[in-house]
Amino acid sequence: MSGRLVIAGLGPGAARLVTPEVTAALEQATDLVGYGPYLARVPERPGQTRHASDNREEIDRARHALRLAEAGRSVVIVSSGDPGVFAMAAAVFEAIETGEAAWRAVEVEVLPGITAMLAAAARVGAPLGHDFCAINLSDNLKPWDLIQRRLVLAAEADFAIALYNPLSRARPWQLERAFGLLLGVRHPATPVVFARAVSEPGEQIEIVPLGGASAERADMRTVVLIGSSQTRVVTRRRGPSYVYTPRRAG
Amino acid sequence: MSGRLVIAGLGPGAARLVTPEVTAALEQATDLVGYGPYLARVPERPGQTRHASDNREEIDRARHALRLAEAGRSVVIVSSGDPGVFAMAAAVFEAIETGEAAWRAVEVEVLPGITAMLAAAARVGAPLGHDFCAINLSDNLKPWDLIQRRLVLAAEADFAIALYNPLSRARPWQLERAFGLLLGVRHPATPVVFARAVSEPGEQIEIVPLGGASAERADMRTVVLIGSSQTRVVTRRRGPSYVYTPRRAG
Repeated sequence: MSGRLVIAGLGPGAARLVTPEVTAALEQATDLVGYGPYLARVPERPGQTRHASDNREEIDRARHALRLAEAGRSVVIVSSGDPGVFAMAAAVFEAIETGEAAWRAVEVEVLPGITAMLAAAARVGAPLGHDFCAINLSDNLKPWDLIQRRLVLAAEADFAIALYNPLSRARPWQLERAFGLLLGVRHPATPVVFARAVSEPGEQIEIVPLGGASAERADMRTVVLIGSSQTRVVTRRRGPSYVYTPRRAG
Repeated sequence: MSGRLVIAGLGPGAARLVTPEVTAALEQATDLVGYGPYLARVPERPGQTRHASDNREEIDRARHALRLAEAGRSVVIVSSGDPGVFAMAAAVFEAIETGEAAWRAVEVEVLPGITAMLAAAARVGAPLGHDFCAINLSDNLKPWDLIQRRLVLAAEADFAIALYNPLSRARPWQLERAFGLLLGVRHPATPVVFARAVSEPGEQIEIVPLGGASAERADMRTVVLIGSSQTRVVTRRRGPSYVYTPRRAG
């Protein structure tokens, strides 16, 4: 008998950003699987088993969850943000495609969540208010050459750009390199938003011009938004500035 | 005395996808402003005034909301999906930038929501599981040349692509043209997802190869997702296929 596997998006952090659909799924699960700090966001429930793992073991975690579901358990994999955006959903479907035939019979459901770039955008205005793209800057799973190529084409297409995983201890230089590449195409005054730990304690938002953007402002919990050629900063006498990209272009 | 203006994302349609933060804001508002069908999703509350408008009057609606907030009301503008993605937030900040100085003193807050492409992606797997972009196909506010250029550059960058507002009665030909352009760069077997009215009654999901994609499958309530060169379809003996883009590339 096959169980059920739900891949649930917890949003950027705060409980007020978790959809009722995800909350209900978390209540009904027999087993929760996920990266430790994400599991820690979910209230404990008696009778529910937790399987915490390291953040780098996505595919192993997906297989573990599929095995539990195949055995008839009702499993929820928790994911930060939206499971479909640089998170657990792709790993689960990769595990299904490359794994045991029986796993294709498991009932799988993805429950969307508020992804980091949209939570970050909301905190400053509407910097992604026109055409935009999302690029994962980590080269763990793709060559740096491809990332560079995408950055340049995205800048040429005049997308606003959201950078996920802008840096880590193992690759502190990439974000700086990305800013350099973008400066070859975009004006130095282009607004850049560094949004760290959005909706959580320690939230920090900075707006700086591309010409003055330094990778030192980011860490592993930061998402970086880079404006298009049209993106505007609206200053105010009191309170922080707004950043938005007009709906009109060209 | 200045009031408060909240721009709230209602998600794709179902109440189970509305964040608690948005629900609380809707309860506290004195005035709700929005496109009629979106307002109709919000339960009526005694003492709360509703200001319904046509969908094409975004900037007028934003100004109307700012005037109410400036007069001390507690206003919520409702938006479908996420307010920052081809929705009301950019119009509000444009109205602030170009409008009365007093509007800059209004306290404005954007509450994110589940945007259509992520709700659609979740229904079929993880087609946006790697780098991707979002393009509004409407040329009401930008020239078609720019849209064409973006489509080609996005295909060359090998992004998965989400198309918002793929067609309307006034421009039935654009989506067909977009498919044609993409076929110049992408393989005809590339998976395309037509997702209509996700999470609502009348939801309809179709997965077809790019070579067989026809604009007739879309309407004004459809979001179209086009895979990258890496996007996979996983077939199953029972149940619909999954579509996902692997985390690994290149």
